[in-house]
Amino acid sequence: MKEILALNAFDRATATALDADVQRLVDQRHRVMGAASVLFYDTPIEMVSARGAFLYDANGLAYLDCYNNVPSVGHAHPHVTAAIAQQIAQLNIHSRYLHRGMHAYAERLLATFPAALSNLTLTCTGSESNDLALRLASAYTGHTGVIVTAAAYHGNTAAVAAVSPASVRTVAHSGTNASPVRVVRAPDSYRVSAADIGARLAQDVEEAARDLEQQGFGVSAFLVDSMFSSDGVYADPAGFLTDAVAVVRRHGGLMIADEVQPGFGRTGGHLWGFQRHNLVPDIVTMGKPMGNGYPMGGVVTRPEILSALCERVGYFNTFGGTPVAAAAGMAVLDVLEAEGLMANAEQVGAYLRECLRELITRFPAIGDVRGAGLYNAVELVDDPTTRSPAASLASAVINGLRQRRVLIGAAGPHGHILKLRPPLCFSREHVDTLVRAITETLVSLGH
Amino acid sequence: MKEILALNAFDRATATALDADVQRLVDQRHRVMGAASVLFYDTPIEMVSARGAFLYDANGLAYLDCYNNVPSVGHAHPHVTAAIAQQIAQLNIHSRYLHRGMHAYAERLLATFPAALSNLTLTCTGSESNDLALRLASAYTGHTGVIVTAAAYHGNTAAVAAVSPASVRTVAHSGTNASPVRVVRAPDSYRVSAADIGARLAQDVEEAARDLEQQGFGVSAFLVDSMFSSDGVYADPAGFLTDAVAVVRRHGGLMIADEVQPGFGRTGGHLWGFQRHNLVPDIVTMGKPMGNGYPMGGVVTRPEILSALCERVGYFNTFGGTPVAAAAGMAVLDVLEAEGLMANAEQVGAYLRECLRELITRFPAIGDVRGAGLYNAVELVDDPTTRSPAASLASAVINGLRQRRVLIGAAGPHGHILKLRPPLCFSREHVDTLVRAITETLVSLGH
Repeated sequence: MKEILALNAFDRATATALDADVQRLVDQRHRVMGAASVLFYDTPIEMVSARGAFLYDANGLAYLDCYNNVPSVGHAHPHVTAAIAQQIAQLNIHSRYLHRGMHAYAERLLATFPAALSNLTLTCTGSESNDLALRLASAYTGHTGVIVTAAAYHGNTAAVAAVSPASVRTVAHSGTNASPVRVVRAPDSYRVSAADIGARLAQDVEEAARDLEQQGFGVSAFLVDSMFSSDGVYADPAGFLTDAVAVVRRHGGLMIADEVQPGFGRTGGHLWGFQRHNLVPDIVTMGKPMGNGYPMGGVVTRPEILSALCERVGYFNTFGGTPVAAAAGMAVLDVLEAEGLMANAEQVGAYLRECLRELITRFPAIGDVRGAGLYNAVELVDDPTTRSPAASLASAVINGLRQRRVLIGAAGPHGHILKLRPPLCFSREHVDTLVRAITETLVSLGH
Repeated sequence: MKEILALNAFDRATATALDADVQRLVDQRHRVMGAASVLFYDTPIEMVSARGAFLYDANGLAYLDCYNNVPSVGHAHPHVTAAIAQQIAQLNIHSRYLHRGMHAYAERLLATFPAALSNLTLTCTGSESNDLALRLASAYTGHTGVIVTAAAYHGNTAAVAAVSPASVRTVAHSGTNASPVRVVRAPDSYRVSAADIGARLAQDVEEAARDLEQQGFGVSAFLVDSMFSSDGVYADPAGFLTDAVAVVRRHGGLMIADEVQPGFGRTGGHLWGFQRHNLVPDIVTMGKPMGNGYPMGGVVTRPEILSALCERVGYFNTFGGTPVAAAAGMAVLDVLEAEGLMANAEQVGAYLRECLRELITRFPAIGDVRGAGLYNAVELVDDPTTRSPAASLASAVINGLRQRRVLIGAAGPHGHILKLRPPLCFSREHVDTLVRAITETLVSLGH
């Protein structure tokens, strides 16, 4: 398995001649960031500004953003940036004092969840949220076993990296005694029939749960991103998670819905990805789009689950739940509502899939088009009959699109799945631009 | 040991009648935050705004801030808030594209460190920084054992909480087979002679290291906050860490300097706390004051240490190293320099200790006054001969000061040490106000 986070990465060793200015920046960056200096694309881009669905480089060229899910209500949205600027100039302090803005945000956000999920803990990142969720599940259940999908990515802390097979490769290959982590196959709707997906997942989870119990770990949590972002974006059939979650609960474990990527309206029909599967999770985690780029995350759960940890060891997060985070989060909810972005995601996403599906007959390399709302994937294959992953074609398409100033990314264990995940202000015109660019790129690559 | 983070906490169970408005806010907060809703003071304060060294409550009353070390260059500093507002309206994106602002910040920050520490990784919080540091140390050394001080607090992720005896109580009591964490005694300069402190610490570390090796963990890191913030604030004699660090290195471990609290000029004489002890750490972690409240943290280390992790599993942090974080961090360095805040911390801190020491003869309950720069502590004792901790007096003093609209906090395993840690724009006039309030409070409490 390739390391998912290094998908679409610039490689200094094989890079062709760069523009002198870019080369100097790449070298400077490598000097100060060292081995952590991973850049996108064969030719990295120096970005200078952004607005709506566009990023602008140092030469003033516009790039259509079909990749970035953090600036979810649009890059540099004036309502959000004004709310942050106003509050940061007034009060920016930790949450050990009372602050009405934080209460108002918590109440508004919690109102979007099933009633049982009535407590919100604010963090700074999706990683911190998943890290806290794992601690909560373990404190509440008394177990340590965690079940995740085969190419899942849940974040960057030590505990979360250990349950992110996309990042820490050893996880995928352990699955035995030493580690309390078990992986199950992703709900691959391209290779498994809709009728079988839910049952296969439930059976995999049952086996993993039994193994965890036999090894003495017990089942603490089934940690799942309902859009399977790193596994390759799997949305249908809605409801396929139901049986697996029931299995986990029978074994005394909790269901943690990682909404860092599917959350905040991206999937169109619902604000939260788990709602698509008609579930009530035990714990929900949030991050990325929550503050449209202001660093914030959150964990929503039942009071007794939060108490299980907090009454024993406490939890405090210095930058979590500040008045500024509350103002940013509130402004994001304002915009989602005022601009009808969830409905837009539903409509424009459907149009995008329709356009992409028209390309299937023309390009045999397009094996599958799938997704929900504005979270979509195009799976590239070397052969539509064997459905073998076309990893190098995916890389060529991504870089070909970059040359046409359209930004997308890759997903899946082989990096052969194009990930289309634009800001939610994406329009039908933007879809047309994207689809035209994909067509041109595939043609230019001889397809 | 009391849980350090719950020191000075409001207790709903024992609370006396609150103002109706405050009561309503407290109830609302408990409803939405549940068990994580910990507030400061017997009578919580609703904060509305802040500027410089003052916070203002809902009634417009000003509180002198002698506690908050995050808004280190002053609450709502206009240079910092303007830099954030400007950049957030222009571009706020992850670090997979090139951005000159990030490079410029990294170069400027790295120039303040010993040359060997040439790589910077930006995170969002001090917790994420320490979490990454532990992963780096383990990847580089191949060991898992970590040595910390007895009441240390290093953050809130699962991995970091496990090395924070102040938060996860079990750590302090394990010290045996199951856990790879060993605690050593804090360098208690009030109870151990200056001549013995360094030797005692080195000996404790030697014993811990040998035990970790015998148990098969090996020594990965000695993780240490050079001001021992949670242990009770110990600054002198400068250099007392030297021998302990040498011991750790002899055992193949790394020294991680947790600069989340001592860093960015707080200790007066140096920008970094470790410089006070004339050390070059292997890894340095940063957080709290780095963006004056904008959520950011960082890890500085040698390239080969960063490579040990990143070439195997990678590290990416979505909100780490954005153009906005770089702008915030840069603005903080601007203000530190332009306003001479490090020198101010040195001078005003010295004056503060001088004034506080004058109180020792008058109030036997003041056992010790110590610190460096604007990181200071007053240790309260029931009896200056036995030096027994006066925990309930400390709580009374903290709440008495709050009634006088002066904000301080507590530290130490018994919560009996007053922690004075104001924004670095603190002046001699502010010192006079603080010292007068402490005097009045002690007198009013019958001392």
